[in-house]
Amino acid sequence: TIIHLFKEIFKAGLELQEKDYSKEMLVSRKRKVEDTVIDINGEKIGDGNPHFVCGPCAVESYEQVAKVAEQIKKHGLNIIRGGAFKPRTSPYDFQGLGFEGLEILKRVGDEYGLAVVSEIVRPQDMEQAAEYLDMIQIGARNMQNFELLKAAGEIDKPIILKRGMSATVSDFINAAEYINSKGNGNIILCERGIRTYETSTRNTLDITAVPILKQETHLPVMVDVTHSTGRRDLLIPAAKAAIAIGADAIMAEVHPDPAVALSDQQQQMDFDQFDTFMKTLK
Amino acid sequence: TIIHLFKEIFKAGLELQEKDYSKEMLVSRKRKVEDTVIDINGEKIGDGNPHFVCGPCAVESYEQVAKVAEQIKKHGLNIIRGGAFKPRTSPYDFQGLGFEGLEILKRVGDEYGLAVVSEIVRPQDMEQAAEYLDMIQIGARNMQNFELLKAAGEIDKPIILKRGMSATVSDFINAAEYINSKGNGNIILCERGIRTYETSTRNTLDITAVPILKQETHLPVMVDVTHSTGRRDLLIPAAKAAIAIGADAIMAEVHPDPAVALSDQQQQMDFDQFDTFMKTLK
Amino acid sequence: TIIHLFKEIFKAGLELQEKDYSKEMLVSRKRKVEDTVIDINGEKIGDGNPHFVCGPCAVESYEQVAKVAEQIKKHGLNIIRGGAFKPRTSPYDFQGLGFEGLEILKRVGDEYGLAVVSEIVRPQDMEQAAEYLDMIQIGARNMQNFELLKAAGEIDKPIILKRGMSATVSDFINAAEYINSKGNGNIILCERGIRTYETSTRNTLDITAVPILKQETHLPVMVDVTHSTGRRDLLIPAAKAAIAIGADAIMAEVHPDPAVALSDQQQQMDFDQFDTFMKTLK
Amino acid sequence: TIIHLFKEIFKAGLELQEKDYSKEMLVSRKRKVEDTVIDINGEKIGDGNPHFVCGPCAVESYEQVAKVAEQIKKHGLNIIRGGAFKPRTSPYDFQGLGFEGLEILKRVGDEYGLAVVSEIVRPQDMEQAAEYLDMIQIGARNMQNFELLKAAGEIDKPIILKRGMSATVSDFINAAEYINSKGNGNIILCERGIRTYETSTRNTLDITAVPILKQETHLPVMVDVTHSTGRRDLLIPAAKAAIAIGADAIMAEVHPDPAVALSDQQQQMDFDQFDTFMKTLK
Repeated sequence: TIIHLFKEIFKAGLELQEKDYSKEMLVSRKRKVEDTVIDINGEKIGDGNPHFVCGPCAVESYEQVAKVAEQIKKHGLNIIRGGAFKPRTSPYDFQGLGFEGLEILKRVGDEYGLAVVSEIVRPQDMEQAAEYLDMIQIGARNMQNFELLKAAGEIDKPIILKRGMSATVSDFINAAEYINSKGNGNIILCERGIRTYETSTRNTLDITAVPILKQETHLPVMVDVTHSTGRRDLLIPAAKAAIAIGADAIMAEVHPDPAVALSDQQQQMDFDQFDTFMKTLK
Repeated sequence: TIIHLFKEIFKAGLELQEKDYSKEMLVSRKRKVEDTVIDINGEKIGDGNPHFVCGPCAVESYEQVAKVAEQIKKHGLNIIRGGAFKPRTSPYDFQGLGFEGLEILKRVGDEYGLAVVSEIVRPQDMEQAAEYLDMIQIGARNMQNFELLKAAGEIDKPIILKRGMSATVSDFINAAEYINSKGNGNIILCERGIRTYETSTRNTLDITAVPILKQETHLPVMVDVTHSTGRRDLLIPAAKAAIAIGADAIMAEVHPDPAVALSDQQQQMDFDQFDTFMKTLK
Repeated sequence: TIIHLFKEIFKAGLELQEKDYSKEMLVSRKRKVEDTVIDINGEKIGDGNPHFVCGPCAVESYEQVAKVAEQIKKHGLNIIRGGAFKPRTSPYDFQGLGFEGLEILKRVGDEYGLAVVSEIVRPQDMEQAAEYLDMIQIGARNMQNFELLKAAGEIDKPIILKRGMSATVSDFINAAEYINSKGNGNIILCERGIRTYETSTRNTLDITAVPILKQETHLPVMVDVTHSTGRRDLLIPAAKAAIAIGADAIMAEVHPDPAVALSDQQQQMDFDQFDTFMKTLK
Repeated sequence: TIIHLFKEIFKAGLELQEKDYSKEMLVSRKRKVEDTVIDINGEKIGDGNPHFVCGPCAVESYEQVAKVAEQIKKHGLNIIRGGAFKPRTSPYDFQGLGFEGLEILKRVGDEYGLAVVSEIVRPQDMEQAAEYLDMIQIGARNMQNFELLKAAGEIDKPIILKRGMSATVSDFINAAEYINSKGNGNIILCERGIRTYETSTRNTLDITAVPILKQETHLPVMVDVTHSTGRRDLLIPAAKAAIAIGADAIMAEVHPDPAVALSDQQQQMDFDQFDTFMKTLK
């Protein structure tokens, strides 16, 4: 029948459209079939094994970061994270130590042989920050700060791109493409929970985004178990699910004394919890 | 200071409130510490091992169900599911075979030695349905059909209660309490994805609801990987994550020829896919 | 070019599909161009003027309903609502007076010359309820309780169908079609807020659903300002917006003494507030 | 009883907390009772009458902007908007004319006696942009780009701050506070729809956010009817609802020939539609 014919052409048209589109994306699996593997201080993120990026929510002092570094080293990990520029909901919350924080991170990194990761929030800071950091994070609130993405695309350091709080998978991939379109293809996509009506967790971990992102792109995929759940008691189960579903890396927050942390007291692990976390997952 | 004092009292008040509330819930872990284990035809759901509840979306004919039963048997499983009363968005979609469908299920169950599960949608059918079925499902759209929940609480068969599309974890637990309050404590909670803004999957699988439900209640928790993802290519990854995070059972749809199925053509597995599914997960 | 050609055919195909679909819906504006007007005790809902359906959340006693009826009468209104079967999240909350509540409503309705509206929750109660009520409400939690919808389609009373908490506009229209497909076309669609991440209101009033529903169907559209906002201080602004955007009716809850109400204490108006409400809006 | 006592103290504690917090917010109604009124070229936004900010989605050429300016003038309006820096989901979509676009806007503004508004996306452009523009917009994607907010707080021009796609009312108010905390209190809050599961509109217009924002802050509130609905056929109904609920201003997009626009073809009005829009609303 004519209706059937139309339907077939209709489907063909649909496929055609999609095919065209994907061909143009640098981050697309259709453009590059092999997995992108990012080597940070010996951790080959994207090689099929789970890797860990841990550290305090915020850099508060040299002593604090050094204590965490010691624990990270103890567990055989090679990367430490810590926030120096903190995007906070209220202007009156602790905003981070800024470049002083990056200096502390770099000093600790050098002393303990750890690669260091931190979030950058202004396009004009990107280059200077690259002198301190081994990997640069773009936070969820800045996932569609396209000027920042472009600046990240112009430096020669791997980027951890966090998914926006209400970004679709397609928005997320397009944000990565902004970075890649400027020349930097070393991008790790980080699922960190999306905003939904559910309130028993801080965000809703969109776990199936992991295999979708790995199908659609050739980039490594990380899961931030701290911000997706917002609950210490869910870090281990969430990390187990993430590893089982194929995540290339796990991000989690550790603090020497979470109760007195300057930010995110409810969700950072103390050292005992971190011990259990690493022993359960490695 | 006085403000500090107030804060302490405030926290104490909070705890007090929560404690009071949980004490009254029959399904609460605080009321009963040990896991509820539900034995269906030898499958002890809740015993710490993953179990599988598979079968076609809808019962279409004796032959169709028998073919699926054979495959299920082949993989050493003991339960088959199939819909006879289908709650469909449009009144003009296939609504299921009704009691004739339940008869087919029972006949196949007897012949192959399988326990049978199906959804019931009217309170007044509950008792009659219990004569055909070993376990009764309450669907997502009926999670807050409280009259149906009460009717389910009055029969002597285990209930699979699916989470509503926009039910909070707390709504979900309260719905289970409706069943339990009428005397039936054999309830399996089934996470099947929640409605969010994301469109790359049919629903968003709320994977951390699994450990939360297991903490808050003593009931077994199931994950329906078919309806949460709506995508055949995500069934295996989703099931892996569900098992890793502690789900007691997995529900998935299998059909002899999904392309001609009377419902949900896009998401049911054919027998080859089901083979791979079971070999990968068991 | 061939791509352009495909696109044109693609678009034509899309239109074709949509046209076919709408033709079959009884509630569709394409099927019936003129507005459906429902006459309840002289209130012609759908005639282009705003109408009001007010009353207590739950029927608690004859005295309580009579007091409210007096106020409603005072403002020249002709309809009273009150819940007798209350679908409550917890089984331990007040569940309503049942048929005793319907009797109270009917008695008050007769004495004050008011039409009475109440929610019915079981298919098997529909017929009996129709003897007490002038209009029957199907609640948000039952919007996809298809057995209840079918039962509502078989009685000869107008139906107020509330939108489900996470129902799309399309789901909502299909639910109305379930009723209409069984013969009853006297349906008022009631927008009552949808579940989103926002917490400053109980639900998010989807105000643009009103003109969309009026475009797509020929049915009258009501806005429940009480449940959509959950806040007494927003009832007047929400009602103003609803009337301005073309709602045919407003539903709002009034109670002689909200502080001691058996349900929804936070959102019902007392008589002074109801006075201001009616004076501002009429 | 002791439980009752605890509850009273608990409630007192809650109030105390909230009171403390609001006291510190510069944008809070508790800090300043009177409405902030922003005078732009004679339009006193916040004076109780509705004002209109219209213009093309993107500045494409001098001719295009001039044509729109003529229409705006014709309707007695005094402000024109147009995007020069366009934050687009894909890096391959039209990104705007940049400073060249601002020059076009300024030239047209001078010639037609209109105040000009445009979005700025990089902190470092803020000062230079202030030389071209009478009012600066911060887009939804940048609502939590805190560095941009701080930069906006340091210039002496009114700011239109758009609500983020998944920002709560509280996040939104805090974002405004970032601007105000740096010294600039001339802020218009712009509701532009939030991301929900509903797909019949581009976003869901959260209409009750308008009265909430006006209660909680002393700032004027605008509603962007174009981006909240994404549908030309809903612009008039949405604007009516917005004005009825108390919005101080309406933003809407107009283009000489929407079909060939470089962005947002589906939702801009042509001049005939704009005529009807203004005649219906003024």
